[in-house]
Amino acid sequence: MPGTSDLIRTAVAGRVYDLEQPRMAGMPIHPAHRPGYTYHLHRRHRDGYLPEKFGPRSGASGLLFMMEHTGTHIDALSHQASDLRLYGGVEVTPQVETVKGFTVHGIETMSPIVARGVLLDICGVRKQDPLPERYRITAADLEAAARLAEVTVEPGDALLVRTGYAKLWNDEDRYLRAAGVSVEGSKWAASRRVRCVGCDNMTWDETEERDPESGATLFGHLHLLARSGIPIIENLDLEGLSRDRVREFLFICTPLKFVGATGSPVRPIAVA
Amino acid sequence: MPGTSDLIRTAVAGRVYDLEQPRMAGMPIHPAHRPGYTYHLHRRHRDGYLPEKFGPRSGASGLLFMMEHTGTHIDALSHQASDLRLYGGVEVTPQVETVKGFTVHGIETMSPIVARGVLLDICGVRKQDPLPERYRITAADLEAAARLAEVTVEPGDALLVRTGYAKLWNDEDRYLRAAGVSVEGSKWAASRRVRCVGCDNMTWDETEERDPESGATLFGHLHLLARSGIPIIENLDLEGLSRDRVREFLFICTPLKFVGATGSPVRPIAVA
Amino acid sequence: MPGTSDLIRTAVAGRVYDLEQPRMAGMPIHPAHRPGYTYHLHRRHRDGYLPEKFGPRSGASGLLFMMEHTGTHIDALSHQASDLRLYGGVEVTPQVETVKGFTVHGIETMSPIVARGVLLDICGVRKQDPLPERYRITAADLEAAARLAEVTVEPGDALLVRTGYAKLWNDEDRYLRAAGVSVEGSKWAASRRVRCVGCDNMTWDETEERDPESGATLFGHLHLLARSGIPIIENLDLEGLSRDRVREFLFICTPLKFVGATGSPVRPIAVA
Amino acid sequence: MPGTSDLIRTAVAGRVYDLEQPRMAGMPIHPAHRPGYTYHLHRRHRDGYLPEKFGPRSGASGLLFMMEHTGTHIDALSHQASDLRLYGGVEVTPQVETVKGFTVHGIETMSPIVARGVLLDICGVRKQDPLPERYRITAADLEAAARLAEVTVEPGDALLVRTGYAKLWNDEDRYLRAAGVSVEGSKWAASRRVRCVGCDNMTWDETEERDPESGATLFGHLHLLARSGIPIIENLDLEGLSRDRVREFLFICTPLKFVGATGSPVRPIAVA
Repeated sequence: MPGTSDLIRTAVAGRVYDLEQPRMAGMPIHPAHRPGYTYHLHRRHRDGYLPEKFGPRSGASGLLFMMEHTGTHIDALSHQASDLRLYGGVEVTPQVETVKGFTVHGIETMSPIVARGVLLDICGVRKQDPLPERYRITAADLEAAARLAEVTVEPGDALLVRTGYAKLWNDEDRYLRAAGVSVEGSKWAASRRVRCVGCDNMTWDETEERDPESGATLFGHLHLLARSGIPIIENLDLEGLSRDRVREFLFICTPLKFVGATGSPVRPIAVA
Repeated sequence: MPGTSDLIRTAVAGRVYDLEQPRMAGMPIHPAHRPGYTYHLHRRHRDGYLPEKFGPRSGASGLLFMMEHTGTHIDALSHQASDLRLYGGVEVTPQVETVKGFTVHGIETMSPIVARGVLLDICGVRKQDPLPERYRITAADLEAAARLAEVTVEPGDALLVRTGYAKLWNDEDRYLRAAGVSVEGSKWAASRRVRCVGCDNMTWDETEERDPESGATLFGHLHLLARSGIPIIENLDLEGLSRDRVREFLFICTPLKFVGATGSPVRPIAVA
Repeated sequence: MPGTSDLIRTAVAGRVYDLEQPRMAGMPIHPAHRPGYTYHLHRRHRDGYLPEKFGPRSGASGLLFMMEHTGTHIDALSHQASDLRLYGGVEVTPQVETVKGFTVHGIETMSPIVARGVLLDICGVRKQDPLPERYRITAADLEAAARLAEVTVEPGDALLVRTGYAKLWNDEDRYLRAAGVSVEGSKWAASRRVRCVGCDNMTWDETEERDPESGATLFGHLHLLARSGIPIIENLDLEGLSRDRVREFLFICTPLKFVGATGSPVRPIAVA
Repeated sequence: MPGTSDLIRTAVAGRVYDLEQPRMAGMPIHPAHRPGYTYHLHRRHRDGYLPEKFGPRSGASGLLFMMEHTGTHIDALSHQASDLRLYGGVEVTPQVETVKGFTVHGIETMSPIVARGVLLDICGVRKQDPLPERYRITAADLEAAARLAEVTVEPGDALLVRTGYAKLWNDEDRYLRAAGVSVEGSKWAASRRVRCVGCDNMTWDETEERDPESGATLFGHLHLLARSGIPIIENLDLEGLSRDRVREFLFICTPLKFVGATGSPVRPIAVA
């Protein structure tokens, strides 16, 4: 397998960028997903340490209570509907949306993402880092960022858009007023037929904008997930890629297969 | 960046093996980590569907209650102690083991794993698939499997050991009596100075064996995590790799950064 | 307030019967409410014990994850519907059944129950203790038990029916095959216009019986909750009352006001 | 049983005061017990409504995630320690404080409370309702309130102290700055050898006061629970009793028997 050996050698030699924000109680949470996240250590090492009976070994472990849309995460296609239809025209019936979760488009149906990644760093275009609060990233901004980066967004790519808000992860108030992608920007992204999109804010969309045509809030969610079948990754940390001016990279994102769930926490990486 | 372009091209052209088991209530759970896992859809599409006010968009979401050692997961170094010391001799004091989790060796300190992966398929060596219940995989088995696969386990590799029990994921009783790696086998693995180990059973170790020297149960946990600093991945699905006789591959595993936690669910992949 | 003084004196002098089963992981759980119950101590005394800074005091506390229909509990009227209508003909619309729970007939709308209690001890009538597995308690059994106890069931009473299964609380298999009240028995109870009913089994109803007329499983749930507005208390421990041959008592049951919930764990008491 | 008949008649004729605050996400939570409380309806009526197969009946149910010290609740004696000893000198060893909770003084060991209740309405004494923020109720205040109410606090009583903050249940900021009982006040209460104490604030104690002698915060917790064996009930709603000038009543409080837990949500009632 010569190809595999090359792949291993190049990947292992590459620099790995960790695009996940740390998860802890107190991190920013979207109001619809509160209380969001909590971890509790419940078994301590001393609990099971009985050397005369079991030798020197002891274990500790904890439990997680969390909404799947907390921290850095990816949305499953079942997360959004358009007039009560999921992507592909699947009607939201009781057979589709069940007490155990979705029987269609649950996150477990999403393959691991191994794709070319491109970073469109809007801060560079707008010369503000982070972008102004609630700034709406236009299609022209996205095109300008691609030109500046000398990349072309191709079908199948992972398209990451940077607002610069990742550094405000410890400031929920400001983070929730982040810049986001506008209605036109989401249409532009969808028309590129990308594998997925991602952003370093809570919602991809700028939350106060409405689609003038349909009246929809979070239009990108509607258009990308429910109409175009393109998953959205939120709360990325794109600071390292930006700092090193990495614009093109191997992007890997592996959603956990929570059967029936509408999303998954993820730790995407970029290798370059 | 010619290296990156090559990396992207090779990786995207590669075949991706998904090494994660599906997660659902009823999957096998180690007795120490019950109730283990449950997902509940709590927001339904109809809950927020008010087209005259908000347009055609609606969202659904759920919540997860889970122990971090459920499903396919990786153990943080803080998960195990030897005479109340973590890897590196860190004493388990109240400053280290706190109400918010571990301040040393929490899972958030583990880098994404991008490594050469090797599969030691013990079923091929022993000519039984799955291996007999509670079979203890010896160092000789591991060496025989490496010879058969024509691979050498090198420092930094991800070493995956196959028992064949992944196919019993829907049969908790049998799955919990799986074959596992013996005391000698764990010593062999640790001496290879690998980046991590993984197995297609609940505990890596064969659970009824005790280290004759120290009296420890789950000796591999003690030796690999607490003494050697080598994380363990459990509940892998190695059936696809075995079927395609893939013995060497790019291995990627990205633990979620739950601050202070003793492990993380993961969806490791192999690319070949 | 002479009445109050008398009340206090008599009540404090009375014998208090605790009708609640202990709650712990591993107690019997109805399959529809699994995993049911778990308690985790997460803050330990040593975590906050810093005498030089805070003096001698330290605190410990934990967390509960539970379905509201676990252990000894009372069903809210919102728990059951008949042809998608709650008690009083309230249609189950998205305004009634919301993401935050029920806006009508949630458990918080139920007043504390302070009522005359009567125990109908069917084991005495049938001369078997516990009753045979899956025995269906008839209206004639209930009437015979009332005669034997020399009590008349009156409107407003708390009507408790004893199968003798409380002593099998540690044996989930047998407990889930308990005797229960038949279709006819539930009709009899409802016709007495009691304040509430209760039983020492998981479901009041015998779970394999179906109403021949409507085809409904758990007919008592349908008839008592959705049609008659009479709450059901499940998993009572009636052994003490039976042992002391107490047939009439002051019954007190105080559902917790979980806003919107379909039931509440309770610790009912009898004072006699 | 003539006594029982009288008891029933008087109790049923009495007025029942509900002393519990409603429970919902967003209610005030002590910082040490966040996120505190959340309820999620996960089974909806429509999920199981299949009339042709199961008749007209359907059920709905939810799940609770909560800390035991949220909402109106009672503290178990295991909740507090003095120099790592629980009430009665029980040392906090790993055998006492375990992964399943406390094996001594868990809330399941607390009997139902059926006692004479007395209300000391400090707002009446101080002529401010609610009391000023962070006001520390003195022993003299408690004695003055008893005189005003013409009651004597006796051993075995349930002693309820009113600050007037219950009406601020919807205003977490102000509620967390409530008046509370001073060090001297807690000593006075303990010296009365009461069955339990309760208050209409988050912590009984005024949270900024320290015991000058030991340096302890929340001195009442230390003194009442760990040293005197007297449980504390928090977040009571005493507005109804105050409005009706009820000073003496039958008090009933039934902690749920969560085995090993350090407290329980309760719905205490007063009957007068």
